[in-house]
Amino acid sequence: MAASRTGLARLFSPASVAVVGASTSQDKAGYQAVLALRDFPGEVFPINPKGGEVAGLKAWPSLKALGRSVDLVLFAIPAALCVDAVREAIASGCGAGLILGGGFAEAGPSGAKLQAELEQSCRGHDFRLLGPNTAGFVNTELPLTASFLPSASRIPAGEVGVVAQSAGISLTLSFLLARLGFGVSCGVGLGNAVDVDAPAVIEFLAEHPRTKVIAVYLEGVNHGRRLYETLRRVTPKKPVVAMTVGKRDIGEFAQSHTGNLLGSYAVRVNALRQAGAVVVDSTEELAAAAAVLSLYRLSPKEQAGVGIITAQAGAGLVMLDWLRSRGVSVPALTAPTLARIRACLPPMTYLSNPVDTGRPGESFGDVFAALTDDPGIDAVIAYALSEPAALRPAELLPDLARRTSKPILFGTAGTREETEPTRDALHQARLYVAGSPDELARAAVTLVTDARHRARLARTENVVEPRASALTLPSAPDEDAAKALLESISVPTPRRIACVSHAAAHTALAALAKPVVVKILSAEISHKTEVGGVQLNIADDAGLAAALARLDAIPLDGPRRYLVEETAPAGLELIVGAVRDASFGPTVMVGFGGTLAEAVRDTATRLAPLALEDALEMLEELGAAALFRGWRGGPALDRTAVAQVIVDVGGLLYRYPAIEQFEINPLRVYPHGTLALDALMVLTPSPTALD
Amino acid sequence: MAASRTGLARLFSPASVAVVGASTSQDKAGYQAVLALRDFPGEVFPINPKGGEVAGLKAWPSLKALGRSVDLVLFAIPAALCVDAVREAIASGCGAGLILGGGFAEAGPSGAKLQAELEQSCRGHDFRLLGPNTAGFVNTELPLTASFLPSASRIPAGEVGVVAQSAGISLTLSFLLARLGFGVSCGVGLGNAVDVDAPAVIEFLAEHPRTKVIAVYLEGVNHGRRLYETLRRVTPKKPVVAMTVGKRDIGEFAQSHTGNLLGSYAVRVNALRQAGAVVVDSTEELAAAAAVLSLYRLSPKEQAGVGIITAQAGAGLVMLDWLRSRGVSVPALTAPTLARIRACLPPMTYLSNPVDTGRPGESFGDVFAALTDDPGIDAVIAYALSEPAALRPAELLPDLARRTSKPILFGTAGTREETEPTRDALHQARLYVAGSPDELARAAVTLVTDARHRARLARTENVVEPRASALTLPSAPDEDAAKALLESISVPTPRRIACVSHAAAHTALAALAKPVVVKILSAEISHKTEVGGVQLNIADDAGLAAALARLDAIPLDGPRRYLVEETAPAGLELIVGAVRDASFGPTVMVGFGGTLAEAVRDTATRLAPLALEDALEMLEELGAAALFRGWRGGPALDRTAVAQVIVDVGGLLYRYPAIEQFEINPLRVYPHGTLALDALMVLTPSPTALD
Repeated sequence: MAASRTGLARLFSPASVAVVGASTSQDKAGYQAVLALRDFPGEVFPINPKGGEVAGLKAWPSLKALGRSVDLVLFAIPAALCVDAVREAIASGCGAGLILGGGFAEAGPSGAKLQAELEQSCRGHDFRLLGPNTAGFVNTELPLTASFLPSASRIPAGEVGVVAQSAGISLTLSFLLARLGFGVSCGVGLGNAVDVDAPAVIEFLAEHPRTKVIAVYLEGVNHGRRLYETLRRVTPKKPVVAMTVGKRDIGEFAQSHTGNLLGSYAVRVNALRQAGAVVVDSTEELAAAAAVLSLYRLSPKEQAGVGIITAQAGAGLVMLDWLRSRGVSVPALTAPTLARIRACLPPMTYLSNPVDTGRPGESFGDVFAALTDDPGIDAVIAYALSEPAALRPAELLPDLARRTSKPILFGTAGTREETEPTRDALHQARLYVAGSPDELARAAVTLVTDARHRARLARTENVVEPRASALTLPSAPDEDAAKALLESISVPTPRRIACVSHAAAHTALAALAKPVVVKILSAEISHKTEVGGVQLNIADDAGLAAALARLDAIPLDGPRRYLVEETAPAGLELIVGAVRDASFGPTVMVGFGGTLAEAVRDTATRLAPLALEDALEMLEELGAAALFRGWRGGPALDRTAVAQVIVDVGGLLYRYPAIEQFEINPLRVYPHGTLALDALMVLTPSPTALD
Repeated sequence: MAASRTGLARLFSPASVAVVGASTSQDKAGYQAVLALRDFPGEVFPINPKGGEVAGLKAWPSLKALGRSVDLVLFAIPAALCVDAVREAIASGCGAGLILGGGFAEAGPSGAKLQAELEQSCRGHDFRLLGPNTAGFVNTELPLTASFLPSASRIPAGEVGVVAQSAGISLTLSFLLARLGFGVSCGVGLGNAVDVDAPAVIEFLAEHPRTKVIAVYLEGVNHGRRLYETLRRVTPKKPVVAMTVGKRDIGEFAQSHTGNLLGSYAVRVNALRQAGAVVVDSTEELAAAAAVLSLYRLSPKEQAGVGIITAQAGAGLVMLDWLRSRGVSVPALTAPTLARIRACLPPMTYLSNPVDTGRPGESFGDVFAALTDDPGIDAVIAYALSEPAALRPAELLPDLARRTSKPILFGTAGTREETEPTRDALHQARLYVAGSPDELARAAVTLVTDARHRARLARTENVVEPRASALTLPSAPDEDAAKALLESISVPTPRRIACVSHAAAHTALAALAKPVVVKILSAEISHKTEVGGVQLNIADDAGLAAALARLDAIPLDGPRRYLVEETAPAGLELIVGAVRDASFGPTVMVGFGGTLAEAVRDTATRLAPLALEDALEMLEELGAAALFRGWRGGPALDRTAVAQVIVDVGGLLYRYPAIEQFEINPLRVYPHGTLALDALMVLTPSPTALD
């Protein structure tokens, strides 16, 4: 469903809040939730059948008795009572609800039934529901703490929007941001997300003026395709950093958490990246990446260049190694830049990139300025141990930052007494300060990755459509039909003739270049080789007769046909396949053929449709990508042709919902072009005409 | 050279310190170095030709004039003056020196010459020299700050010993430790390490009572084998954590730093791990790993089990995923443990491992106790957002910790006002506190990794020696000679006959099972296949004659011989090779055969000699390790036989210095046993008799 702007504004920026289940017992969520509203500038209405007072506020016996259509209703009542309470809120004209408690899909079948009723109750109404099973959200701008967790009201205000499936992670992130000296604009825990889900909140935060960057933590994703499309729209305008779990099998515990299945980690991570999010691996990295992107964003660029300044060579090595091993460019400096630096520093230091200043002196700022002026440098990172007698970053850097539009990131270590005032002063000037060389390098990687994603998204705004327009569904999706489909979208296959009889096969042999391959042709058999259904190296009629006899020995229910095909030249073998992921929809993969490739799981995955550039990027991601570039003196292979096949196979599933799965295995790759040697197509259970 | 205990004690724990080059200019290193000694309880002697006073202390015109054999001399003078100054210190009976300044090997040829003279000056004397080109060291126990960096004197005292090639990293680490609430016992920057190097300092710290854990940061390693052997001795007694750089090519900058070449990153990292060090990837991880190991060490165990408690399910998922994806066991709990937990918690929570307590209540401690009592659990990690009304960790955990010998690690996030007093109180009780779920999980990984290394070292204390004792060097190290060597150490090869003539080859054909392979046999040719020197599938005399004719067409200087060999059954192909690394000595590797395996660089590396268990571990490290375990219904392959070959090939290089390189390519692997199909041996330039 599309996000209703009005509805979400009433949820996250309400003028009035009611708490159903407000309690006078201080250890109850219904008391804590009212208490947490004490700084909220709008109206607050505790609802308690007994009336009286809760936390110093007059309590109303029911929403109906209140007689007001409040914007947001917090439900701090048992799961079994929630459906009726939500109906009452809708009837009273309330705009949004938040169910804090659990006991729904995460708690088993009876809870799942309750959750379904809840979903049903909201449907068709202009009422947005957050939760259930969440600790709630904060909007620090109002301020509003819609949560029973006391610590939620202590989240510092700032510019990072947080969307987390788990409110516990949302709060953890908030406090990690606080430790870095940053704060949160809106922090939202989604819980079971029966209505308001990650895409909806991301869409809201994208338009939220106070929010400069969106940090997302996801477990399972139910509507992956919508998340992907939302992120693709949002990331060009506002940076998104994301983290997800599920590298290993943690599904049982995950399901007990929010009732959602995890799905494939690789598909999820790749979809997030493809949509332009900077994907990280830990909550600390998520907080740090959001922090730096709340201050800076590079222009879209494939390979942004980073300049490194260091007062300690060891720290410079650590940063250089970190950047290089993550594919970040640390380019050589121009001659004028080097001349400027040489004029600043004693001859013994390392005058290149990194610039090793040795013990920093008065020229540190000049070196900095020289680097930021270099045309090949898009961001400068500088590390120096705290040494107030030699370097005063809080005095030096704000001036330098004003002189340039390029990000300036600083890193230092020292006693807290020295480094905290420095950090606070630099934060005031909206400058980033890291506490170690690695953290500093990571911040640069974040900026460069975001710029690379943006460049790719800009390039691939109009993804390539498959080369054919309307196709006719084959009656039986056998190899010949699958190959015909490939031909119709201009994917080359070996010359072949489908035959219904031995005689036809002999005629075909005469017409084709020899030797040929003879295969059994039937949609009944998906693994031909395993049943002896592929006969290689047939050069004459005698050989063909023997081959046909062997094929006739394979049991078959339907009609018996043969495929006679020219033998393809030897070449590197790939697998290109597309499936329909339950959450993310059409997904295409590529990997090398053969047992070893399968065993090392050397594959790359993207959502379809995709652009040629995306497909080329997939090839570069493969561990054995070097094989394309003229291995051991051999010729370079045609990567563009492979990329086009990936685009086309992805396009097939994207455009034709009747195709459930399509696989080319193997796809042979040559210095010029490719050949699809075998193709497998699976149609959806009740096939209709394609397109 | 072996570490002289007396010498190093005079260096790191001196009773008296002189500063040569003491200066009255406050911005000079020679002033800062004297100033940094103000808290040193021993005697301090500034040395300045002009006499007078430096930083309030009487200055002496020269060491000679001082007339005392001080323990430690700090040299804060230009590089060109250092050699003479060191000679004077030795002549005066001083015990050790520290050269702070640069201008040596890192600065080019003339500096390298100075450094060589420096090394020469120390040789043969009972005088230990630290540096040059380092910011020095601290010994917080005395306290002693031997450095010109003012921040060095602000390093908090503690139990972590730090050895870093770069003093900048040593200081960064020290402040990262301080941020975690930990401190340093001795922190040493090695610089160019002409005398005192990493192994020497590690050996010293291993015996240093105050030091509970050793943190090592390395760039290039000159005497890798000695480092390895030192670490192997030390890690069973005291934990070592290590970090090194050089994943990508950063050699030029690294060499400019300390004048050392980097060498292979993979060899270095694997050697550190093999010697029992916990290897990490960033300075933050290095500090955190050292911190947790300064508090706890698990007993040697292959698969230590971690119990997880969480008050927030999302945090539990993050921790579980982190541990599982790093191969750490999070075992199921026993029935009695589950019953105890069930009695503590409401039914809706997730009662397994992780235990999700929901909002923590009074039972949190009981759940904790139940987990620590579980026989399958070796360490417990618990995460809860700061919620002082519900949980007071500072009151709860110290009691729990006293009840068990198992490590208890706690993680929390909240406002600094709440979490810092908690952390400080828990540190007082020697408990570890992490600031995020990932950091908490990482701490557990550190303990489990250390325990695993210890178990392996205990198991492999007596590494397997090669199965033969004395060998005779072949006159020409051709394939036949290499295979004879393999046979003599019981590595199986196909049946073969070396032949000097066509007639002999035909006789050989008659004697062997057909078909055979016929190969050119000459030490002149190392890549037979590429010159057509391998003729396959020869079954009769006619075929042999044709094959021999083709071999005779290959130009050759020396005598022409042939190898007639039985064809080996098909099977999975591996490469097993051993080389003599310039720094680490005999090094053995294994990888899968074929182009794809080579392109993905799927290999594992260890130093020789090694135990069978080490070699089996190498096979598990391969990305395609699944191929050994019965791929796609095929039979499981003989991993033990492969491991034995790895041990034996490593042993060849370890025992016989005349062998420079040995490679089996391919080694075929079967369900029972292996066969070395081809073998290549390279001898050192001036070969002498083996053994």
